[in-house]
Amino acid sequence: MAEPLRVGIAGLGFGATEFIPTLERMEEINIVAGADLRPWACEEFEKRYQGIAYNSVEQLCADPNVEAIWIATPNHLHAQNAITAARNGKHILARKPLGITMEECLEVLAAVDSAGVKLLAGGQTQGTSALIQEARKIITSGDLGPLRAINVIAYTGWMLRPRMPQEVDDSMGGGVIWRQAPHQIETTRYLAGGMAKTVKAFTGSWRPERPNGTGYYTAIIEFDNNVPVTMTYNSYGYFDTLGLTTWAEDKGIENRAQSRSRLLNNEIDEAKEKENTRFGAPGEGTVVGGDPGRPWTPGNLGIFLISCQDGDIRMSEKGLMVYDNYGSHEIEIFQPGGAGMALDSEVLELYNAIRHGKPLFHDGPWGMATAEVQWAIIESSRLGQEIKLRHQVAVPLNE
Amino acid sequence: MAEPLRVGIAGLGFGATEFIPTLERMEEINIVAGADLRPWACEEFEKRYQGIAYNSVEQLCADPNVEAIWIATPNHLHAQNAITAARNGKHILARKPLGITMEECLEVLAAVDSAGVKLLAGGQTQGTSALIQEARKIITSGDLGPLRAINVIAYTGWMLRPRMPQEVDDSMGGGVIWRQAPHQIETTRYLAGGMAKTVKAFTGSWRPERPNGTGYYTAIIEFDNNVPVTMTYNSYGYFDTLGLTTWAEDKGIENRAQSRSRLLNNEIDEAKEKENTRFGAPGEGTVVGGDPGRPWTPGNLGIFLISCQDGDIRMSEKGLMVYDNYGSHEIEIFQPGGAGMALDSEVLELYNAIRHGKPLFHDGPWGMATAEVQWAIIESSRLGQEIKLRHQVAVPLNE
Repeated sequence: MAEPLRVGIAGLGFGATEFIPTLERMEEINIVAGADLRPWACEEFEKRYQGIAYNSVEQLCADPNVEAIWIATPNHLHAQNAITAARNGKHILARKPLGITMEECLEVLAAVDSAGVKLLAGGQTQGTSALIQEARKIITSGDLGPLRAINVIAYTGWMLRPRMPQEVDDSMGGGVIWRQAPHQIETTRYLAGGMAKTVKAFTGSWRPERPNGTGYYTAIIEFDNNVPVTMTYNSYGYFDTLGLTTWAEDKGIENRAQSRSRLLNNEIDEAKEKENTRFGAPGEGTVVGGDPGRPWTPGNLGIFLISCQDGDIRMSEKGLMVYDNYGSHEIEIFQPGGAGMALDSEVLELYNAIRHGKPLFHDGPWGMATAEVQWAIIESSRLGQEIKLRHQVAVPLNE
Repeated sequence: MAEPLRVGIAGLGFGATEFIPTLERMEEINIVAGADLRPWACEEFEKRYQGIAYNSVEQLCADPNVEAIWIATPNHLHAQNAITAARNGKHILARKPLGITMEECLEVLAAVDSAGVKLLAGGQTQGTSALIQEARKIITSGDLGPLRAINVIAYTGWMLRPRMPQEVDDSMGGGVIWRQAPHQIETTRYLAGGMAKTVKAFTGSWRPERPNGTGYYTAIIEFDNNVPVTMTYNSYGYFDTLGLTTWAEDKGIENRAQSRSRLLNNEIDEAKEKENTRFGAPGEGTVVGGDPGRPWTPGNLGIFLISCQDGDIRMSEKGLMVYDNYGSHEIEIFQPGGAGMALDSEVLELYNAIRHGKPLFHDGPWGMATAEVQWAIIESSRLGQEIKLRHQVAVPLNE
């Protein structure tokens, strides 16, 4: 094996805790530095890794020992952090979204190009899960004929969980479109080949406990070959998509009602609860993770109903249910923990690009294309019209 | 009670068998005449009712003993039959759709106006069911705050059942948009107040066994107050919405695969099977009907997920599940047979308009507004653009 990649982690918050177990486990990675605004998180980091923890991303990016930066800062900082990293000659893994305006996405791409570094954007979503990989394999096999349409439905309590102000403020890249839509968009772009053409959407910010953030969207995204993708996400936590599964009960209805009430009455210290989920805190890693091999549940991705010419595919208890001209059969798929995200494969994708010059699938243009759909959902709703997309890229031929 | 209404039935096919049991049962109605092209159906009719059965709608409409015509002919004849009836001074109940072009809808409205007769259009759908009445009551009560969005999902095997050519030929008012969409459209227009503003939609005709008819659509319909309704209908019979209910199993998967195979191989005499469901045939009334009080199943209406400011409503096993700020509770609703259509109330609506001068809810303009949404789904898909609606009317204040 070539030598491990020396990685610096920008932002030691909840986001970082999602991928840190993977980085610690993989021999391709050495965690050598970090950055965070909170001194005690930096102390914890230095104890755990014998690496240096800086109190700014700028200092982290200036560390000559760091080869690649994993960006896990709040959404509105992703693009500026990526530009800083690129200008310092660092490779980059940027969590979704790549940026929250098309302008800053283009600036990242230009900085990466001119520095000649590798950027893995997009990914870090359930679009890379084993389940979705298998669905894509069925579609491209042609066994069910050409893809015709996809319908996605997600109702969750995302808005009711402890949040920092920037997570539920649209202007800072918060709300469900900037924070959750990438799961549905990356997944459908992958399943449908990547090239979205138009977006017609409606968004909603309905609830007093979250006055600054969008909590709902519904959209039809038109892909190449006249394939419509209808997707809906409602994060206000009344009905939950679990109610549409036959194998998993929605046991959280009363809990969500209580959370809503506490938020409305300012009876919860969200900053404190959130802090408990961050790097080095007692709750680190307890929120994500899940049990490997557990029954599939819709979560933030939602239920996908995929229609092809000669059959349908949907998520099921053990993996995928396929309906074809002979009847139906279930394909069992082992789901690793960690919300079903295939983090190992993303690490390898970037590692192989850096060490072995292999092409990236989830490169900057791919990540920008996903961000463009997010942006278009917001714009379509704001302007009351359909948005034509201009920055889409296809799934690479050698996927 | 005022004297019973003397009714003539235009078309003694499967459609008529859906409402005939109701007409026979209600004391407000006397069935006095009918019309059909098939001599044996006319003979059966005359035996059963001691009334006259004509072999044309024109002759039926000329019968001075007939006060009102129930139109149950194929879709492409509804408008011309309604015009004939109006010109002969007959009141009219027209099954959906009122017409299959906006021009013929306008001609019907003009003929009805100038003749001064009553026309009940729309209705005859699950939009009038007890379930939907109750959902509307919850919405208008304000208990859950203002309506914000609706999501409707229906996957059925409609295309695989025995069909006459005109049922699966778009140009004759066939396919799922002309024949099934009224269930979803009438229901959502009723729930959302009636005034749709724009439609963005995609339609699909995907399958070789039904080459001339649309079997799929997905649409976002924008209503007043920025309420989006997302609706999808797929009739190709692979996945069925039953798979999203926890209380009813989809036991028809293999049967649908066999039906598809027989259609593809021309192994089924559809005309013969269809004839068996018509008036006077051994199978009359066996397809519809169902068991009163049975658990609710999605059928051609689909699952509705209704979101308000302060809660969600969805269909459930016994009626409606309501999610609010306290938790959730199920409202039990007795569902009469007959696919859940409230046929009695429609008969009374027309009867009271004719005998007592009461205003109609489901009048010609209401029926045309529903037909306009159907037309707009087709046009939006054909032109690849959003369609602005011009013929919408509101739910009457005294609903």
